[in-house]
Amino acid sequence: MKDSNQLRVAIVGASGYAGAELAAILIRHPRVELCGLYVSENSVDAGKPISDLYGRLRGVVDLPLQPLPTQFDPSLFAQIDCVFLATAHSVSHDLVPKFLACECQVFDLSGAYRVNQADFYPDYYGFTHQYPELLATAVYGLAEWQQAAIQSAELIALPGCYPTASLSALKPLQQAGLLDDDCTPLIDATSGVTGAGRKAALASNFCEVSLNPYGVGTHRHQPEISAHLGRPVIFTPHLGSFARGILATIHVDLKANVSEADVMNAFQLAYADKPLVRLLPQGVWPSINAVAHTPYIDLNWSKIGQHLIIFSAEDNLLKGASSQAIQCFNLRYGFLSTQALAKESAC
Amino acid sequence: MKDSNQLRVAIVGASGYAGAELAAILIRHPRVELCGLYVSENSVDAGKPISDLYGRLRGVVDLPLQPLPTQFDPSLFAQIDCVFLATAHSVSHDLVPKFLACECQVFDLSGAYRVNQADFYPDYYGFTHQYPELLATAVYGLAEWQQAAIQSAELIALPGCYPTASLSALKPLQQAGLLDDDCTPLIDATSGVTGAGRKAALASNFCEVSLNPYGVGTHRHQPEISAHLGRPVIFTPHLGSFARGILATIHVDLKANVSEADVMNAFQLAYADKPLVRLLPQGVWPSINAVAHTPYIDLNWSKIGQHLIIFSAEDNLLKGASSQAIQCFNLRYGFLSTQALAKESAC
Amino acid sequence: MKDSNQLRVAIVGASGYAGAELAAILIRHPRVELCGLYVSENSVDAGKPISDLYGRLRGVVDLPLQPLPTQFDPSLFAQIDCVFLATAHSVSHDLVPKFLACECQVFDLSGAYRVNQADFYPDYYGFTHQYPELLATAVYGLAEWQQAAIQSAELIALPGCYPTASLSALKPLQQAGLLDDDCTPLIDATSGVTGAGRKAALASNFCEVSLNPYGVGTHRHQPEISAHLGRPVIFTPHLGSFARGILATIHVDLKANVSEADVMNAFQLAYADKPLVRLLPQGVWPSINAVAHTPYIDLNWSKIGQHLIIFSAEDNLLKGASSQAIQCFNLRYGFLSTQALAKESAC
Amino acid sequence: MKDSNQLRVAIVGASGYAGAELAAILIRHPRVELCGLYVSENSVDAGKPISDLYGRLRGVVDLPLQPLPTQFDPSLFAQIDCVFLATAHSVSHDLVPKFLACECQVFDLSGAYRVNQADFYPDYYGFTHQYPELLATAVYGLAEWQQAAIQSAELIALPGCYPTASLSALKPLQQAGLLDDDCTPLIDATSGVTGAGRKAALASNFCEVSLNPYGVGTHRHQPEISAHLGRPVIFTPHLGSFARGILATIHVDLKANVSEADVMNAFQLAYADKPLVRLLPQGVWPSINAVAHTPYIDLNWSKIGQHLIIFSAEDNLLKGASSQAIQCFNLRYGFLSTQALAKESAC
Repeated sequence: MKDSNQLRVAIVGASGYAGAELAAILIRHPRVELCGLYVSENSVDAGKPISDLYGRLRGVVDLPLQPLPTQFDPSLFAQIDCVFLATAHSVSHDLVPKFLACECQVFDLSGAYRVNQADFYPDYYGFTHQYPELLATAVYGLAEWQQAAIQSAELIALPGCYPTASLSALKPLQQAGLLDDDCTPLIDATSGVTGAGRKAALASNFCEVSLNPYGVGTHRHQPEISAHLGRPVIFTPHLGSFARGILATIHVDLKANVSEADVMNAFQLAYADKPLVRLLPQGVWPSINAVAHTPYIDLNWSKIGQHLIIFSAEDNLLKGASSQAIQCFNLRYGFLSTQALAKESAC
Repeated sequence: MKDSNQLRVAIVGASGYAGAELAAILIRHPRVELCGLYVSENSVDAGKPISDLYGRLRGVVDLPLQPLPTQFDPSLFAQIDCVFLATAHSVSHDLVPKFLACECQVFDLSGAYRVNQADFYPDYYGFTHQYPELLATAVYGLAEWQQAAIQSAELIALPGCYPTASLSALKPLQQAGLLDDDCTPLIDATSGVTGAGRKAALASNFCEVSLNPYGVGTHRHQPEISAHLGRPVIFTPHLGSFARGILATIHVDLKANVSEADVMNAFQLAYADKPLVRLLPQGVWPSINAVAHTPYIDLNWSKIGQHLIIFSAEDNLLKGASSQAIQCFNLRYGFLSTQALAKESAC
Repeated sequence: MKDSNQLRVAIVGASGYAGAELAAILIRHPRVELCGLYVSENSVDAGKPISDLYGRLRGVVDLPLQPLPTQFDPSLFAQIDCVFLATAHSVSHDLVPKFLACECQVFDLSGAYRVNQADFYPDYYGFTHQYPELLATAVYGLAEWQQAAIQSAELIALPGCYPTASLSALKPLQQAGLLDDDCTPLIDATSGVTGAGRKAALASNFCEVSLNPYGVGTHRHQPEISAHLGRPVIFTPHLGSFARGILATIHVDLKANVSEADVMNAFQLAYADKPLVRLLPQGVWPSINAVAHTPYIDLNWSKIGQHLIIFSAEDNLLKGASSQAIQCFNLRYGFLSTQALAKESAC
Repeated sequence: MKDSNQLRVAIVGASGYAGAELAAILIRHPRVELCGLYVSENSVDAGKPISDLYGRLRGVVDLPLQPLPTQFDPSLFAQIDCVFLATAHSVSHDLVPKFLACECQVFDLSGAYRVNQADFYPDYYGFTHQYPELLATAVYGLAEWQQAAIQSAELIALPGCYPTASLSALKPLQQAGLLDDDCTPLIDATSGVTGAGRKAALASNFCEVSLNPYGVGTHRHQPEISAHLGRPVIFTPHLGSFARGILATIHVDLKANVSEADVMNAFQLAYADKPLVRLLPQGVWPSINAVAHTPYIDLNWSKIGQHLIIFSAEDNLLKGASSQAIQCFNLRYGFLSTQALAKESAC
């Protein structure tokens, strides 16, 4: 910490859904001083208190949304210890090196530093990455799987919402070597509408939302999942008529001799000491209601012959974005991983 | 009819929610040939079949949305008998005289010809009306109350959705002279989100909609209701988390000696032979579920001393807009008032 | 027809969601006289008009729900041409032979006569079937696939809602021989809450419903689909937070040399002349909004290598139950298959 | 505190929606030891961990729901400092004296001790009150208005959800003498479905809920509001299609010379130092989204001549029940009134 026993923290992109969740969590974190909320210089929200946008935050966080000068001014952040970027991918891409140069640790919720592969950014994000050396050192913030690397990271790239739901379900099996060699996991996942961001868009209009697939075969989370799982996947996102949450239904083929006990052991090994992953009792299936407004991810599975169906549910804005960012923050600075997250989520 | 035993009909503004409902009803009307669907010349939807916008209409109405030339071309409508305008207020204001000049009857769903009062358009719609003589002859299409006038009208101005719900509840009492002289009716009404139209708007985003008042003391439907009721009202609209429907809860004071039987008689007198107004049995309250996707308006009331609460429910897109337009159309041309509307609404 | 040029029709189990839809459709069918609505003798709804239960039907269908005597009385049905059973499985099981003995054709929406396999009823419905000879002659009413058989059937067993969604998507591929020999189709499907029936149940409480799988590996629609497809499937139902509709996302492996054109040809061959199946344009995905309150099933697919994802959407109460029953009824008596169904569904 | 520096607390009726909220708040209260969750002896939930009923509480509160013996056993509660009753009215009526005899302070969320009037319980709750002396000493826990009385109360009767929303809006005006002498406030309020409790009921079925009035002229919250306001009111409850929250739209007539400033002053005087009441900025209207999952009540108003419309929004389970109970608890034992409530509510 630069000058106190609290970490001085800023959020860039605080007007969006994930940014507002970050503000709501950080304001109650006992080791954090929330120093600044930023939006882009030309945002219509610049100058407003965040609680003008989010009425539920009135009296909780009333800090103003400050315009971040397009001409980056390092002096603004000289006293800041770390920054959360809840910004568009291309904005994060540009800001990360500037904040690192200020000796801020960076928690980036965008996709700009998630996948260290040559064609990934041109193919899926439409730009060529300018900072390959940073990309190479960024730590992928899938919190339960990267604990050691996070502790010394300067740049943490938070996973996407679907990748968190998918990888949390698949990595235990992959790591334990239980998946059939030829298996291409199939991921059918449904997200709430907050996943589309806080914006005016016909597709997000109350009257247009129902339940339907979208981005079939083209969603950028597919290569992100594949890259961090280490095998191809087929990923099919759906939009559902609810505000928050993701449910993923995932199909894999197990090797010939894998038993139910092997599957259970793999999940236990991965998550027995991880308080924010809940392995549900037999026959209790993950549901959106049980995870919305919580920092947890719920998992369960059913084995039918050598076919395994894994169900995974999370709040897309929390475990799929903001609360996982705070988890990484807690790990980075040596706090309890659940600090400001668990036992405070129900009211 | 200009040249057949079917009426040749066009819809302008067919891409909006009310326009699409009109198309869906008119396509099944046995006495109608649906000849053209129009959108503004620069609409992004110009050229698309309407079923590209409304998947439920695929195979039902696949007509293209044609761009209406900004330079109005009367020859396009020489063979058209009548036109429905589901356009913005200012667009209807300009189009009405042009279509009338084509010897088309006009059913205007906008607010452009509803209230024949000097200050109404400048104060509430932001423009000065250019066609006071048309405004003076337009018939207000509150179908149950204007049957005779509609039969010979050339221009029918359909009521707004809230005014239909409000006036249908209040006019029987006003006409019967049951309201206390000092009574200012209070109208608390809640509309579904289709009321805001088919457009990208943050306020209509699935995640932003809940239940809240809006336009308090300023909504343009207040003077419309007052003008057609003949006394001031206080009208408070709310937005609710559902797609279709309006529920109005209305408070009035009755004259000192008015009895429950008087109230019942007033409603019976007004609506006994009106098949699209349903007076519910005692203790059965109007609800959105009972009217959504139907052409009905449901009414009931409760008398507490000389205070009367009237409840009114309708589908804002149907009885509050499109199906009432068809009702007026049926009345205008001598068809059964329920033609293409009732008994065909449940599936 | 026994004694008129209209068919005289009764509905048993008319108080449920599917029964009410049947009543709403049949009341507007030009070749039908809707003669009686029945509920079980001890139903709390016996004696009420159906519009007391379904406010939207007030003025549309106000027939009383008559108690069906437990001691079956054939004289009640002597003048009835055909009956729709929207009853519990065990009730249909017992009623079917009684109605057939009255020379009524029977359209059974329950599961009681769907699968002619020895262990099916004991394993999945908890009873031993007492009428194997009827089970053997019952025609499975998947309308697009059974046109010829339906025309002379006395007993038509309507498919379940999930089987209709699943089989409509899979049969074209299976029939065309495009599926890999080892392929076990995977069906992830989400149903609206009407699928659970009209009843008081904590799981159907507004506050308990979100999105979650249920009946994993045990749902009785799995063997129904397998039996009528002719190969095993893995079927995983989910409950979603909407009233009506089913969306199925289905995964199959194609044979090595199958092309996109082969897939398109298979669907075209199956459905080109079937007006209630809509093959959507490329890149337009089935959605609940586009099928709710309509008699259509929408299909589309995406091929990724030799993996094919097929999407299927329908209204579970209509194409998944009642409107398909009317389709079969229309086919059985030689009416247009869409009579009382299409072009009348939007308002 | 009987034997530690933490208060030992029990919840009776912990399986209901309000009881579960209490558990979720108390588990994170730094001065509370949550010692026992009780349900009625014959509850189907007896013996289960509360997180089996509320999946979101898994890992947060996993205490078992213990059966409370019908034969009350004081020894069970000898070490308990205070008890929250989230039980049926008649159950609370009987339990309160028993817990008081154990020297437990009692926070009763039911209606059993709210109104000290002779005919109230026979007329509205169907029983004759057996403990008039307790009823006379019970403190009505409208937290912002009863601070002093709460500090020494042994029995605190928490207000109903609608009365909290209504009285919080009306009492500032009544106390300041601003209401016209003849004014009967009109309260049109809409509640989410959690207000009907956690139970199987057709009226709470997802498919049956839309928006409609209920209990018109007969709801027991009407006399509760009148009794604690000190003048008659007309109260009309509605059920809305959302899980949590109440919005009340309230109409009053002001005395002839009352100004906008007088109204503002009345609200400021009442609530300037009350952190859980938020007086919204001009033109910002209370909404369900802004209060759901928070302990706040939001207020605003609009003056039209001498007519005043006041809007009030709260979470019916929190400010309308459980979080207000904790507010009273905090006041009773000298903790910060917002302890365990504010700044911890957003995630």
